[in-house]
Parts: sequence; C-alpha cells; structure tokens
Amino acid sequence: MLVIRAMAVIGTGLIGTSVALAASRQGVTVFLSDRNPVAARTAAALGAGRAEDPPEPVDLAVLAVPPSHIGAVLAELQKRELAHSYTDVASVKSGPERAALHHAPDPSRYIGGHPLAGRERSGPLAARADLFQGRPWALTPSPLTSDAALRHARELVALCGGVPVVTQCQVHDDAVALTSHVPHLVASLMAARLREVPEEVSRFAGQGLRDVTRIAAGDSLLWGDILQANAASIVGVVKDLHEDLARLVAALDALAEPDGAERVRGMRTVVDLLDRGIAGLAEIPNARRGTSVEDIPVRAAVADRPGELSRMLDALADFGVDADDVTVEDAAAGEIGFTVAFAVPARVADRVVAELMAEGWAAGPESGARPGWSEEGSALPAVRT
Amino acid sequence: MLVIRAMAVIGTGLIGTSVALAASRQGVTVFLSDRNPVAARTAAALGAGRAEDPPEPVDLAVLAVPPSHIGAVLAELQKRELAHSYTDVASVKSGPERAALHHAPDPSRYIGGHPLAGRERSGPLAARADLFQGRPWALTPSPLTSDAALRHARELVALCGGVPVVTQCQVHDDAVALTSHVPHLVASLMAARLREVPEEVSRFAGQGLRDVTRIAAGDSLLWGDILQANAASIVGVVKDLHEDLARLVAALDALAEPDGAERVRGMRTVVDLLDRGIAGLAEIPNARRGTSVEDIPVRAAVADRPGELSRMLDALADFGVDADDVTVEDAAAGEIGFTVAFAVPARVADRVVAELMAEGWAAGPESGARPGWSEEGSALPAVRT
Repeated sequence: MLVIRAMAVIGTGLIGTSVALAASRQGVTVFLSDRNPVAARTAAALGAGRAEDPPEPVDLAVLAVPPSHIGAVLAELQKRELAHSYTDVASVKSGPERAALHHAPDPSRYIGGHPLAGRERSGPLAARADLFQGRPWALTPSPLTSDAALRHARELVALCGGVPVVTQCQVHDDAVALTSHVPHLVASLMAARLREVPEEVSRFAGQGLRDVTRIAAGDSLLWGDILQANAASIVGVVKDLHEDLARLVAALDALAEPDGAERVRGMRTVVDLLDRGIAGLAEIPNARRGTSVEDIPVRAAVADRPGELSRMLDALADFGVDADDVTVEDAAAGEIGFTVAFAVPARVADRVVAELMAEGWAAGPESGARPGWSEEGSALPAVRT
Repeated sequence: MLVIRAMAVIGTGLIGTSVALAASRQGVTVFLSDRNPVAARTAAALGAGRAEDPPEPVDLAVLAVPPSHIGAVLAELQKRELAHSYTDVASVKSGPERAALHHAPDPSRYIGGHPLAGRERSGPLAARADLFQGRPWALTPSPLTSDAALRHARELVALCGGVPVVTQCQVHDDAVALTSHVPHLVASLMAARLREVPEEVSRFAGQGLRDVTRIAAGDSLLWGDILQANAASIVGVVKDLHEDLARLVAALDALAEPDGAERVRGMRTVVDLLDRGIAGLAEIPNARRGTSVEDIPVRAAVADRPGELSRMLDALADFGVDADDVTVEDAAAGEIGFTVAFAVPARVADRVVAELMAEGWAAGPESGARPGWSEEGSALPAVRT
C-alpha cells in the first residue's frame, strides 16, 4: 500500500494552501512553493508546510496553478523529478489532460483532479484545512494514468476529507460548465446590471439579489482562464440560455400589450419558464430539504384555537421538524380543527407520536406508512378541544 | 396622533400572516380573511388574529393579495367601508395605484406599500412576526393619498419593525425590476438548464449553484402575476441582459478558436464582463463587508515562523477581525517576517494595539490614520524573533 509521507504543493493560493493545511495536520511533510515568495511564506506561517524545495522526490506533487499553466508546470517538474505522482486541482480537466499527454515526460504519473470546493475570497489567508470536508473531489485518470498515480490521488482526497468521484475529463468538464462556470457567468451578468444604479435601487437590494450575484466576486483573471479552458463546454449552455432569454423578451413584450390574447400567450411562456426553473431546482441535491426515504409521514389533529397550532409547531421543532415542512389541512368531515401532516425519521417516529399524544394531541403515522404499525395508532381519534 | 387599534388583513399567505403576527404581538386587534378559509383559520391558530369580519370599520386594511387583484379587492372593501385607510403589500406599485385611482370609491384613503422581505416558502405556516425587522418597506403615496393614510401606513411599518422608504411608484417599480424581478428570472433560467441532467452533474452541484438558483423556488403563478404587473420595467433590463449574453456567446466562440488574436479578443470581452460584475456587486450594501469609515487601519509585525501567523489571526479573531479582511505583506527592508494589515473599529483600536503588544507583537495604527496618536505608536519596532 502506498502512503503519502511527503508532498509538494505548487501554488499557495486558497486551494493549494487548504490542501497543504489538511495534509500537514495529518502528519504529511509538505513543501510549498509559489511564483510569489510572500504567498508561499504566508502559507508556511499558517502552518501549511515548509516554503522550500524538497531535498528528494516527494510521493505526490499537487499543482495548484491556473488551468492554462498545468501542462508547462507539469513538464518542468517532471524534468526535475520532483515527485513520484502528480495531480492538479484545476476546475477544468480536458485541457490539462491533453497538455499532459502531449508535453509531460511521463504522462502515466499524472492524474487530473478537481476538489469541488471554494470560497469567494482567494489567497492563502482564506485557506481552511476543512475546506474539502465531505465535498466531492473529481479524479479524471487519462488512458495512460498508472494505478500508483490514481492511488496517490485517492489518498490525497482521503487526507483532505473529500469524497472521490472518478470520471472522464469530458464528463467532468460538461458537468462543471453547468454547475459552476455558467452560474458564475450568470451571476456576473446580473451583477453587471447594478452598476451606477440610483440609490433607491441599492436600498431595495435583498438577500435574493445577494445570493444570485454572490459568486460574481471571484478573481476575474483566474476566472477568465477557467472559462477559456472550458469554453467549448460552456458555450453550448450559454447558447441555450440565450435562446430562453429571447423567448422571455418576447413574452414580456406580449405581457405589456393591450391585446388580451397576446398577454395570455406571454403569461403562459413566463409561467412555463418559471416552472422549468422549479423542475431544475429539484435536480440539485439538498437544494430543498425533501422527505427522505427514511422518513415516515405522520398526521396529528390540532384544535382550532388561537395559539394551539403554534404550540404544535414548537413541539415539532423540538424534533427537528421545520414549520416549512408541515402542511395543514382541514380536519376530516364531522370533526373540527386541523390535521397537520409532516415527516420524521423512522428511528424517532414512535417517540414523536408518543410524546405528541402525551401532550394531549391525537397523532399517528399515516395509514400504510409502515408495515407493522398497529391499526389503532394510525386512526386519528377525535380532536381534543 | 393616529393609533392603529384594529386592522384587517386580507390574504393570509406568507406576507399577510407575518404582518398580522407582528401587529397582534403589538396589541393590535387583527381580523383575518382569505379566499381559502383554511388559510385564514391556520393564521388565526398561529396567533395572527381572528378569522372573522370586523364588527365595525377598522383603522387600516392591509391587502395581501396578488397585484392584479388589488384594484378589485380595494373597490369592494371600500364599498363595504371596511376600514378608514387601506394599503397593500404587493411587490409592484404602478398597476395597483392606477387601479386605485380609476376604480376605488375613495382613492385618497389608499397608499401603496411593499415590504422588501420574503422567503422561498409561501403560505401562513412560513410566516414570521420578525420577517420585516430592519427591512426596507416602500410606501408609494399617489397624488391623491391623504395624510391620514400615509400616517396609518407609517405606523404599520413601525409595528412590523420595518424601515419606511417613501418614493414614487414608478421609481419603486424600476428598482425592484432590477433588484428582485430580473434576479428571479435569472435564477429560473439557470435552474431550468438543470432539468434532466446526468447524475454526475448533480453530484458536482455546490453552494454557488444553490445560491444562484435558490429564489427560483417561488410560486410560479404568483410570480407570473408579479412579472406581468411589472413587465414594462422588467423588459428593459432583460433586453440589456440579452445583449450582454449575445456578446458573451461571441466571446466564448472566439475563445474556442485556434486563432490567437481571436482568442485574445474573446478573453478581453469575458474578463471585462466579469469585472463589470464585480463593479456591480460593490453597489449592493453589505454584499461584501468593507472597511467602514469608523475603522482605523492597523499594522503589526509577525515573525516568519510556522504557526506565528495563525497565532496572530486567532488573536485578531478575538477582536472580530476576520482572516478574510487581513492582508499580508513582506516586512520592511532590513527586517524579516511579515507585516499584517487590518482595520478595527475606532473605539477598540487602542485596546487591540495594546493587547497585541502585550502578547509580544510590534503593532500600531497606520501612520496618519488618526490625528493625535503618538508617533512612537505608529512606528513599527523590529520584529520579535
């Protein structure tokens, strides 16, 4: 089994320094270098490693440089025999792989890598040892990548607490175009509309606007490099967006028309676009907390008295059920009050129901929600008044 | 002086119920109604008021209904003499004002209102009494609005903890097109691109994508109504976005070209667009914590030893200085180590400098930062080693 004892980090910006911090804390000897010597020394002073060249080849060299520099830096380091294996952390993978295959003295020792983590701020001071904790980390072996290089890279991911996702460079690049590069461009385009606005406008800025535009704050030269490196994957998505925007302009023009039929058509297009957005959101994991397969639906009856529903919501909050995840319906025919429906993890369902009933509420899992739950429990008794 | 003792809230969704909760907690008697009786009863059960009609005219009626319904609802309520004054909470103001001026029996009793607050979730269960705390609340008096109506509305804003911003309806609508409606559309357009993506794509989704798309989760029919009501203001911004996107498509196509000159031109356009985004971000208050005029720049010297910079950053964190707001420079000529620069509120600057020096660091405010600071204090002694 390979074990990383020593590694080199080339480029001590946000990502390089965070990798170095994580590895140093796991006992790895880390050698730091950066085009800007103050950046490497700053990283060293933060405890990320030593700002010096390794005295002998290290196990793994991590290239934390812009995507367009990876080919040249890799070739130079391999000529110097800096390390046994090499990886990088650039957010684009096809270009670096192509460069490695064409220019590196030994492409078998290189494997592309990309930790899906970052911050709006850059530089070593923004680094955090836990930046990659639980985050996906793409590894994109080329047809020539050796097993040793793949294993070294997997170990790096483990040292940093990341979750390895082994995939092909083109699959990766198409994915990040959609999940990272185009969102960055969209945030920039939106933020650019805010230049030189009257004061009233900025007073009305809320959290929504801040969220939509937040990631536009990245370094424009580094981002220019990233976008250039992935232009082929990005342009397809941007063209689709451009077509949608053309449809939207036509729909908004129609909505401003006096003609009723035109407006109905415009409204249909706009609502369809909004609905497509809602459908797309559902594809983002954890974007909206949904009911997990481990959750059990529960219903409880609440009297129609001021404060009674709040009391129930407070009780549910103690079980980690957010008010946003509760729905309220009219009580069944012949009863008064409400029925509230929510879901709780299977392991606590019994306790939740028991405690709600102890507090005087009629409660039970939804019929058929779980085999084995007694029928008495699932029938809602009459509302407590 | 007018005092609101009783009010009516028409429409007990997120905003209406939140207004009613805030007013009820301040001792106002609130009467609730909604097209959907379960929604009104749910709001009442949350403690927002009584789900019944007021026995006599209330001081203020708050119309929390979609923008396109305000004219008709206002006219009907005024015919029933429900209240002395009327306001609404719709996010568009020109259409409702026009409708009030044309259709309301007494337009002088109406003033447009719009609390700049919201959540992705809708309905009474998502309501919060503190939803409007510290948030701007636009009030848009028409030429006919009476002083009494304006004062009632100001009092409502105060009851809810909001900050009144009195402006004209068209100024408001242009502002929210830019700060709210177009960002919503942008979020929807981006989210719509995520439908039916391969699993790899969703695995790579990060916080950036989630932030850019979060607000796309709103109710599409309500948002369709809002967008229709403000189509004239929105379409101009969307057309500008469409032009920017066309430039971006051309630039990305150029970046994928083999011709060097083409690529340089494409890169220039892309970086310019990113820089315009960064410039726009600066217009959003609090989007990025900056140095306030009350802050005093301080410099301190740190030895070039592993862990020493971390120790300094920990000390600064105790004073509320985030690592993101610290810059590191090389020490002055003839000295070793770093100089770190940061800013602290004027009232604590003396204490910060004294405590840093007590810990053995050379520290002082930047020369000329504050008149009256002794010259000894501003000169940095040699680095402690």
